[in-house]
Amino acid sequence: MIQVSEALSIVLSHRPVIVTEEIPLIQAIGRVLAEPVLADRDFPPFDRVTMDGIALAFTEGLPAPIAGEVLLIESTQYAGEKPHQLTLAANAIEVMTGAVLPIGTHAVLRYEDLDVTERDGQRWAALRISPESGQNIHRRGEDRRAGNLLLPVGTRLSPAEIAVAASVGRATLRVQTNPRVAVISTGDELVAVQETPQPYQIRRSNGPMLVAALAQAGLNAEEFHLTDNRAELKNHLHDLLGKYDVLLLSGGVSAGKKDFVPDVLAELGVEKHLHQIAQRPGKPFWFGTKSGGGAAVFALPGNPVSTFLCYQKYVVPFLKTGKNQPERRAILTETVTFKPNLTYFVPVATQLDEQGRLLARPLRGSGSGDFANLLDCDGFLELPAGPDEFVAGEAFGYLGFRV
Amino acid sequence: MIQVSEALSIVLSHRPVIVTEEIPLIQAIGRVLAEPVLADRDFPPFDRVTMDGIALAFTEGLPAPIAGEVLLIESTQYAGEKPHQLTLAANAIEVMTGAVLPIGTHAVLRYEDLDVTERDGQRWAALRISPESGQNIHRRGEDRRAGNLLLPVGTRLSPAEIAVAASVGRATLRVQTNPRVAVISTGDELVAVQETPQPYQIRRSNGPMLVAALAQAGLNAEEFHLTDNRAELKNHLHDLLGKYDVLLLSGGVSAGKKDFVPDVLAELGVEKHLHQIAQRPGKPFWFGTKSGGGAAVFALPGNPVSTFLCYQKYVVPFLKTGKNQPERRAILTETVTFKPNLTYFVPVATQLDEQGRLLARPLRGSGSGDFANLLDCDGFLELPAGPDEFVAGEAFGYLGFRV
Repeated sequence: MIQVSEALSIVLSHRPVIVTEEIPLIQAIGRVLAEPVLADRDFPPFDRVTMDGIALAFTEGLPAPIAGEVLLIESTQYAGEKPHQLTLAANAIEVMTGAVLPIGTHAVLRYEDLDVTERDGQRWAALRISPESGQNIHRRGEDRRAGNLLLPVGTRLSPAEIAVAASVGRATLRVQTNPRVAVISTGDELVAVQETPQPYQIRRSNGPMLVAALAQAGLNAEEFHLTDNRAELKNHLHDLLGKYDVLLLSGGVSAGKKDFVPDVLAELGVEKHLHQIAQRPGKPFWFGTKSGGGAAVFALPGNPVSTFLCYQKYVVPFLKTGKNQPERRAILTETVTFKPNLTYFVPVATQLDEQGRLLARPLRGSGSGDFANLLDCDGFLELPAGPDEFVAGEAFGYLGFRV
Repeated sequence: MIQVSEALSIVLSHRPVIVTEEIPLIQAIGRVLAEPVLADRDFPPFDRVTMDGIALAFTEGLPAPIAGEVLLIESTQYAGEKPHQLTLAANAIEVMTGAVLPIGTHAVLRYEDLDVTERDGQRWAALRISPESGQNIHRRGEDRRAGNLLLPVGTRLSPAEIAVAASVGRATLRVQTNPRVAVISTGDELVAVQETPQPYQIRRSNGPMLVAALAQAGLNAEEFHLTDNRAELKNHLHDLLGKYDVLLLSGGVSAGKKDFVPDVLAELGVEKHLHQIAQRPGKPFWFGTKSGGGAAVFALPGNPVSTFLCYQKYVVPFLKTGKNQPERRAILTETVTFKPNLTYFVPVATQLDEQGRLLARPLRGSGSGDFANLLDCDGFLELPAGPDEFVAGEAFGYLGFRV
């Protein structure tokens, strides 16, 4: 059987060739940038006033302005206006935050450091403190220079990147195209959500769960259900393989007599890259790709906890290209004994401690069929194959699913 | 000036009355549940076979089946079929995972523990091990009982809750209605993203940033821009106050001569609850509500870093009702000196250590105007007002914005 880390490497090595598209900036949140974004001009683009107050001059050969002096205010320079010109070095220009620094001025003093009075129709500013040259000015190009790379290819766009792209005039951005994803549940025991099941049937839950999880990741998926009829399975999968980039199947991959999924996929030219992983839950997981750069097929075990765990562990990293946040770790709060030589993904409820560590309390459940157990759980802790005992206080990889 | 924690309490105390709506299950991901969801039947709803193999009987008065015995297979019980009936206690019924346990059987033995052979048109299973009564059966009602509360009111719906709601037949769910949000930037220095600014102008970035951040939180917001014209501001805000539940303004709340926002809001009957917080950046933040349960108005400072920080600190918790994940903490990796008696939200780049602790490296920038700095930053560390020095190794509240 394949180990978990090897299985993940195999899955990731079959990511499809990246396709890109140009979309409106506002829709680009969460997407992965497929072109570099450069500064179109300096950041800031001009010497920018950072406080409401007055701008004044420090002129060579003249004494610097000092506390106690009273300066005539020549005019008011608002944000968005062309720069005013100070006509006399001993005067001042009133300035607003965000305005360009008036020509002939070299510092800004805040209202809080002034007393402004009116006399004979003119306004005067008495300095409470001695200003320093350059004070309260955000200098042109101080943060970035025109032509600087702001956002490299592969950046996942958060609100900060959207703001920066807007400021350099990018009303559209080239990003990685989202794959078309089909979610396909199989199993004759399953009825639709709105139906009343017979006592020996259950309602489909994997389809809605996966579609919801994908929606949360920004992907619109379509949902299908197929019965355990071999011919029907083959016909429909043939169609879906032609129309979608990624197929997420659930069910039909174990050793059961109606578990046709692996055979049918092989007949349809989907090359198997792995089947059966040394893990619990989710051992029967199957992964393959249609030859010639075709669809990637994840055939997930049908038990809801197994489906969900395999989705989190293998499908999410496969779909989440670009630079991502590092994987989290959490600390086991109770010693766990697990004999089989398998990676054990134990459902855990988490809590933060004072140091910001994630504490993970293992939940005892009835195994992969007990998906009500997921309600109390925030994620899974990955306890590696090998040891029989995992001691309280140790840190392990953590797969969380709540935001 | 108001302290940060008090400001947050004031903001949260003015959350609007909760309105609810019924929406399709698939669309409910990330929403907050407004009705309890109960189990409509037992979980599992029947004695459920958990392995592919054979089901056999443990009958009182008869010896228990043991390793080496060979049992006649009477029939095959598939998932989704009505339960078969074992006719003779010494025989067995082949069973598939997910099937109901056949009537008259009491344990399931896996294929791995059997040798199945065919003879005279009949199939026989030789037991490699001695089965135990109850083995590989997930008992009816073992996880939850019909009528049990599965999802309480106030639950934020993750994929796990969607799966459980599906399984109890909830094709729709009553959830909290999303507020209608308007994002309004102000400032005469601002031009649209697609325009070429004059040397003394800049492009609007707060609008796209906030709309993108809201979209990521599952909220569709509309974007507006108003100039610093008092009459225009008043007219438009009057309109918007009638049409939206939440207004997010940026700019126009400082001491500048065109900072009309607070006055205009007062004239429009928006009651001020706070203005100016003892924090950096974001000191000029203003918050009020229209009397009579009307719109909530967040007037955020216009500098992009201030806007974004105030959005994260005040607007996100206001909008994120229901039970949420606990706030994160991160550990300062370098000592920071900060003299003013203000809460200092320092931009940080984060990294996880082996224990899963978030390490936060403070980024030196040019202040609230330097929003290119946000690109290197993953969030803000909240260093409380009071101390002048924050020592490396201490943990503080962390506001992250990357997912």
